[in-house]
Amino acid sequence: MGGVPKTAMNLVAFPGKEMDLSILRAIIEGGIDKLKEAEVVLMGGHSVEDKEIKFGLSVTGIIHPRKILAKKNLRPGDRLILTKPLGTGIINTAIKAAMAPAELCNRVTRIMATLNRRSGEIMEKFDISACTDITGFGLLGHLAEMVCGSGNSVTINSGDIPLIPEAIDFANMGFVPAGAYNNRTFREEMITFNPQVPRTLQDILFDPQTSGGLLISVQENQAEKLLNALKEGGVEGVAQIGEIVSGPKEKIEIK
Amino acid sequence: MGGVPKTAMNLVAFPGKEMDLSILRAIIEGGIDKLKEAEVVLMGGHSVEDKEIKFGLSVTGIIHPRKILAKKNLRPGDRLILTKPLGTGIINTAIKAAMAPAELCNRVTRIMATLNRRSGEIMEKFDISACTDITGFGLLGHLAEMVCGSGNSVTINSGDIPLIPEAIDFANMGFVPAGAYNNRTFREEMITFNPQVPRTLQDILFDPQTSGGLLISVQENQAEKLLNALKEGGVEGVAQIGEIVSGPKEKIEIK
Repeated sequence: MGGVPKTAMNLVAFPGKEMDLSILRAIIEGGIDKLKEAEVVLMGGHSVEDKEIKFGLSVTGIIHPRKILAKKNLRPGDRLILTKPLGTGIINTAIKAAMAPAELCNRVTRIMATLNRRSGEIMEKFDISACTDITGFGLLGHLAEMVCGSGNSVTINSGDIPLIPEAIDFANMGFVPAGAYNNRTFREEMITFNPQVPRTLQDILFDPQTSGGLLISVQENQAEKLLNALKEGGVEGVAQIGEIVSGPKEKIEIK
Repeated sequence: MGGVPKTAMNLVAFPGKEMDLSILRAIIEGGIDKLKEAEVVLMGGHSVEDKEIKFGLSVTGIIHPRKILAKKNLRPGDRLILTKPLGTGIINTAIKAAMAPAELCNRVTRIMATLNRRSGEIMEKFDISACTDITGFGLLGHLAEMVCGSGNSVTINSGDIPLIPEAIDFANMGFVPAGAYNNRTFREEMITFNPQVPRTLQDILFDPQTSGGLLISVQENQAEKLLNALKEGGVEGVAQIGEIVSGPKEKIEIK
């Protein structure tokens, strides 16, 4: 984390015989819109015939070697800040089942289409010890990656975690993607939930996110300033969600 | 063409539940071997669960803007040089059907695992008008890309085309991949085969290549010198296969 993206390649798997090419065109145009916004040059790409649509961008950027923000340098006392609300995986599952109203669909799309660029630029001026982005492993999966090998533990205040409100209802209705259960199975040994944390909320904390936010570990007495700077910078849904505690057991406690 | 690769990302699709991870490890190690040989730094990667194995490297490099060799600048009089023998698609089909002896399997693997780096370095000192590499569209598919929009045509001497000898027998036995037929259908309108070119050879000219050679359009009176330089540089199987003729019809004639 901390780099500036410069070039990108389109990577496409598409069922060209079964699906209209206008769908592929819309996907690629969406990617190009975001590349323009991020000031990244599209250099080319590669496509394969496939039964399932897959799309991604392979991005190359630059960073000063001393400014690289790794995942594993969590510092005791630091506060954890999350820059986007959780729940996109659950809501996307509901969208696929045609259960989500258009307004929610648009709102979630806007959240997913929001770059982490602004957050990244703002945090550059603060004393950050570690940073990652939340994607397929969910909040707790990516947090577990930060904790493993850090020699420290983390306490999360479940009531402070930003959520897309509808995710709770849809999780209660069973729209939890299989990936959330896999994420839980993979990491549950290092995670303790206090009994008052509802199972639905636990599922959301493992929900695979598409284009999730940044999870930032910031020096304790800079946390509020960073939080305000992010809010003033237009980063919606940002919140302080927990803190790093010294402890070699490398555990995550959800209060 | 003409750039120097610098960084790469692994791109992996793998059926992790059905196939042993040692297979994935061997694939990735093979990629790393080639990256080391090419002096390219592996920066990271991305993997997805998939029913079919897919592997690729997204590579970023550098090039002087005035040294970029495009596909479309074919110059009348130029000679065409191909740096690797054709037939890997057909022979891979035979390998999948367990019809290829181990020696052939090893030989074809070595051809596919040979980088085009040496050829690229050697051609740098010559007067090249256009260059491409031969992969999934086959020799004639990629040549067609060069011809379209160039305002010129091409004559190929079928007897001069370098082949992996066993490809002829396997093509006769029917081991022609579906991609070869797709490549033919897509481009046959602009291609004329003289009647004496056997259908088997025609199929090989459309055979999708894995890690095929470079197809280089070089100034007429430098062709022999380039050919010799490539041979002396250890580029096996290189041959001069045809020439660029002026003519706005943008056709390919196979003699």
